[in-house]
Amino acid sequence: MKAKVIVLPKQSVLDPQGVAVRDAIHHHGLPAVKAARVGKFIELELDGSQTEAQLHEVCRDLLSNPVIEDYKLVVEG
Amino acid sequence: MKAKVIVLPKQSVLDPQGVAVRDAIHHHGLPAVKAARVGKFIELELDGSQTEAQLHEVCRDLLSNPVIEDYKLVVEG
Repeated sequence: MKAKVIVLPKQSVLDPQGVAVRDAIHHHGLPAVKAARVGKFIELELDGSQTEAQLHEVCRDLLSNPVIEDYKLVVEG
Repeated sequence: MKAKVIVLPKQSVLDPQGVAVRDAIHHHGLPAVKAARVGKFIELELDGSQTEAQLHEVCRDLLSNPVIEDYKLVVEG
């Protein structure tokens, strides 16, 4: 069983990493990229004894900073 | 149109961040997590003029380090 967590800066928060990635890609010769957002991807291997509520708590308290980041949790298997 | 890129350490490479995340989660009271892998998530907003080959080149040359990382590219829209 796996849980996949995507943590991205909130839309309202400036994303300097995203701006840097977009500019680097333009410099690399690909102007098609209008914007970029950079975040964290965390893959958790689970034994199945957890609840979804526990996973959301871990996402909120450990894996993201709710003030400036949003997270998306996908549980597979 | 969007492209989503997930960059993770190769399975054969030690992932100290993943170990740290797993231990922190155990410490938080959730032993169900057997392992964790931590990587980057990059979301690109595209104007559609790019080719898939160009996107793979950007993933390989800019967004990941092919020596220690693998990437997965998903194009939507």
